Amino acid sequence: MTTSASIDLNADLGESFGRWTLGDDDALLEVITSANVACGFHAGDPTVLRRTCERAVERGVVIGAQVGYRDLAGFGRRFVDMDPHDLTNDVLYQIGALEAFARVAGTRVRYVKPHGALYNAIVHHEAQAEAVADAVRRYDPTLPVLGLPGSVWLAVAEAAGLVPVAEAFADRAYTPEGTLVSRREPDAVLHDPDEVAGRTVRMATRHEVVAADGSLVAVRAGSVCVHGDSPGAVAMATAVRRRLEEAGVRVVSFLGGDAG
Amino acid sequence: MTTSASIDLNADLGESFGRWTLGDDDALLEVITSANVACGFHAGDPTVLRRTCERAVERGVVIGAQVGYRDLAGFGRRFVDMDPHDLTNDVLYQIGALEAFARVAGTRVRYVKPHGALYNAIVHHEAQAEAVADAVRRYDPTLPVLGLPGSVWLAVAEAAGLVPVAEAFADRAYTPEGTLVSRREPDAVLHDPDEVAGRTVRMATRHEVVAADGSLVAVRAGSVCVHGDSPGAVAMATAVRRRLEEAGVRVVSFLGGDAG
Amino acid sequence: MTTSASIDLNADLGESFGRWTLGDDDALLEVITSANVACGFHAGDPTVLRRTCERAVERGVVIGAQVGYRDLAGFGRRFVDMDPHDLTNDVLYQIGALEAFARVAGTRVRYVKPHGALYNAIVHHEAQAEAVADAVRRYDPTLPVLGLPGSVWLAVAEAAGLVPVAEAFADRAYTPEGTLVSRREPDAVLHDPDEVAGRTVRMATRHEVVAADGSLVAVRAGSVCVHGDSPGAVAMATAVRRRLEEAGVRVVSFLGGDAG
Amino acid sequence: MTTSASIDLNADLGESFGRWTLGDDDALLEVITSANVACGFHAGDPTVLRRTCERAVERGVVIGAQVGYRDLAGFGRRFVDMDPHDLTNDVLYQIGALEAFARVAGTRVRYVKPHGALYNAIVHHEAQAEAVADAVRRYDPTLPVLGLPGSVWLAVAEAAGLVPVAEAFADRAYTPEGTLVSRREPDAVLHDPDEVAGRTVRMATRHEVVAADGSLVAVRAGSVCVHGDSPGAVAMATAVRRRLEEAGVRVVSFLGGDAG
Repeated sequence: MTTSASIDLNADLGESFGRWTLGDDDALLEVITSANVACGFHAGDPTVLRRTCERAVERGVVIGAQVGYRDLAGFGRRFVDMDPHDLTNDVLYQIGALEAFARVAGTRVRYVKPHGALYNAIVHHEAQAEAVADAVRRYDPTLPVLGLPGSVWLAVAEAAGLVPVAEAFADRAYTPEGTLVSRREPDAVLHDPDEVAGRTVRMATRHEVVAADGSLVAVRAGSVCVHGDSPGAVAMATAVRRRLEEAGVRVVSFLGGDAG
Repeated sequence: MTTSASIDLNADLGESFGRWTLGDDDALLEVITSANVACGFHAGDPTVLRRTCERAVERGVVIGAQVGYRDLAGFGRRFVDMDPHDLTNDVLYQIGALEAFARVAGTRVRYVKPHGALYNAIVHHEAQAEAVADAVRRYDPTLPVLGLPGSVWLAVAEAAGLVPVAEAFADRAYTPEGTLVSRREPDAVLHDPDEVAGRTVRMATRHEVVAADGSLVAVRAGSVCVHGDSPGAVAMATAVRRRLEEAGVRVVSFLGGDAG
Repeated sequence: MTTSASIDLNADLGESFGRWTLGDDDALLEVITSANVACGFHAGDPTVLRRTCERAVERGVVIGAQVGYRDLAGFGRRFVDMDPHDLTNDVLYQIGALEAFARVAGTRVRYVKPHGALYNAIVHHEAQAEAVADAVRRYDPTLPVLGLPGSVWLAVAEAAGLVPVAEAFADRAYTPEGTLVSRREPDAVLHDPDEVAGRTVRMATRHEVVAADGSLVAVRAGSVCVHGDSPGAVAMATAVRRRLEEAGVRVVSFLGGDAG
Repeated sequence: MTTSASIDLNADLGESFGRWTLGDDDALLEVITSANVACGFHAGDPTVLRRTCERAVERGVVIGAQVGYRDLAGFGRRFVDMDPHDLTNDVLYQIGALEAFARVAGTRVRYVKPHGALYNAIVHHEAQAEAVADAVRRYDPTLPVLGLPGSVWLAVAEAAGLVPVAEAFADRAYTPEGTLVSRREPDAVLHDPDEVAGRTVRMATRHEVVAADGSLVAVRAGSVCVHGDSPGAVAMATAVRRRLEEAGVRVVSFLGGDAG
């Protein structure tokens, strides 16, 4: 089957820190087209950032800033009720730091994706959503931002003049309304690589997904998120990529082309 | 008296962190022409960096990156025997982070000055000196770097194609050979504002200083460092500036003009 | 006037960090009987903790553990939505660390007082309140804990078998119901040393305070909190102490005696 | 073969941090009798410390404090030229923090072993060696300390009235003088589990080791260090333990008995 469909695959990279290794970045760089690179506040040290940016460029993968709360011990997965002005500045700091390594690698930071608890907070938390949007707008208003479809975050970003990019999740169950089934539910996360790969192809080619109740739901996503923080996750991401290619789907950056 | 002499005054700024305030940055910005802004590894949080950059631009003061070891508890004043490759990346990270705030403030990072124990280490430590130079060269080889005259650091920087800028110290005693009297000596630091101001004028107008033994020593410095981490230090810096102006010395950035 | 009344005065100490000094601990140690010593997660480095404990013992001041969120950049003033089990362990870690210095100074940690955002969170946040109580109970169930009267925290602590100690605030306005006027209100904080001192004497001798509407409210507090993080605050604390002594109120630890 | 020989096996545990896992502590606890538990400055977060202490007690393994420089990014493997007084206090802080978890697990910190760059520094660096010894002496002078035979550290510790315990290394080559072959040499580290196990048995039963030149060297060690930071290392440690038991060597804490 041949289609003119295309899709962007994003994943979190650069999450090792010092002596501690996390994820198989090299394997993921063979799969994805957009790398959300940690910026040192919740994960990633400068040497990890440098290597990640250089390898991403070698593989033609676009670099985005994975910004988060300043919380190494919590890996950015704990909501911090911080002053929005401080949050804006924490985000600016992180983007700038990563930019140095993107620059040394011959490219630039091309988008921004909030991480972990910050990602989840700004689905609803307007002041923090505006704080992150303010950071991106001041740094470079042409930088697209990734987030959850229907979130306050993407609405606020759009209102700030930024380019919102909605993302879908290859391995998450969807409600009939098109939102994610809560992780508290037993079947919120799919584990069968074949099923996940099939769903991703359907998202890319027909812009739809089978919801938890069996109904069909429309999914318009500029990017699909895959995970890589376990051996099984990398294998699944690899299966997704192969199936997309077998289905004739072009796997390319949502920016429309190669990195650089 | 009118002369065609000019001089740059640099000082450390942006060294507050969170709840802890250090120095009187607003007062110093009335005095200096080059601000060595801390970058968060040994001092300075993102909100402090933002405010410091914005105020520097308002006062026409040039922004430089005050890079140091990752050591908040030690304020960057403890030598860390780190891998040179990691040091290069730590410096890149810091320059990039500060650049974000310089950019938001409408300017750029215009020079680099190592801080504290790093400053002292690379007077002699060749591998670390080369690591810092490598960071600046990769980031932007047109960025000048400040350091101690005669240091391995400035030699290595020059060899790397960077622009070395030697600095003099308004409040330090000099040996007859033109090096600084060690801080372990009783009279290494001068405390009389009048004397310090007079010496600075002489450095600017005649490029010389009276050494500890009374002899005259040549001092060719692109910038003179003043301190601001105590009320007395700010008063002294203010006296230095006033005396320079009274003597007709133009106080301007070593870059030859205003910030921006 | 002679009375048999007694009162404990507590304040936050040991909040300096590395190069950054905060508060006038020496002056406060002349005023207070209970020192809430920071433990390094939101403020206080090991050398600061050592010195604070040694000086407290010299002045006969009892040492308590001022435990908070791991957030130096935010000074523990930002709520962190952390896992309760992790919070229990963070509190254990902090108490143990401070205990080492209390021990070296010849005494022990004698009570626990949560700090900043943690203090405020556990007024209502049951899971975090229980997490802190669990830490104290496991470490030493005989350690009293300080907190806001009527808080979930003190109720949970009591239910866990701990000794809850309610504290009053010398410089805060009270509602007719005996709670604190919110800091968002214009007159929430009192600034006149004379007035604050008079209120404290009244708390100690008659166990009552004049509320914001002029009515009298009962205040039963095991300790009264004074502040010391500004020159004015130290002067006020000193005035409070003097007035208590002039009124014949014994200023002693709520533990009923001297440190040691 | 039956002997009356006994030996203590020590290894580094508790080195995970937040999201990042390091080592297979559960497997190692089946092998060793002394656990050098990280204390949070270079590795180990409070929840990791708690779990490690609890499991060590379950397995009858003695707990020691693995103290190091405050350097998470460098894993304590970079020399920090810090003020000795500050180092004493950093060590006190770490011992106290770990003690809280040992206490909650029903035991105590029973010895101290410096880690990484600190371990190496105090082989020669007298001021830092004295600083660490001073911390242990002030905390509890009955706590034994582990270190390299012939080091300044053990000499200084003994002079301070502490109990020095020399350790041997199962997987390191020895010079004919009984010192370790430098890691810069090609054959400094042995990789064959069988050979390493055999050497350990010989150390335990005959107190000797075959040096790199084939000569026999006396080795009197109170403890033998095994590693566990890679799958191969755990397998090797397991082989060492099995061979010791097959040879009739009792594997027990150098303290002479079980933990508790």
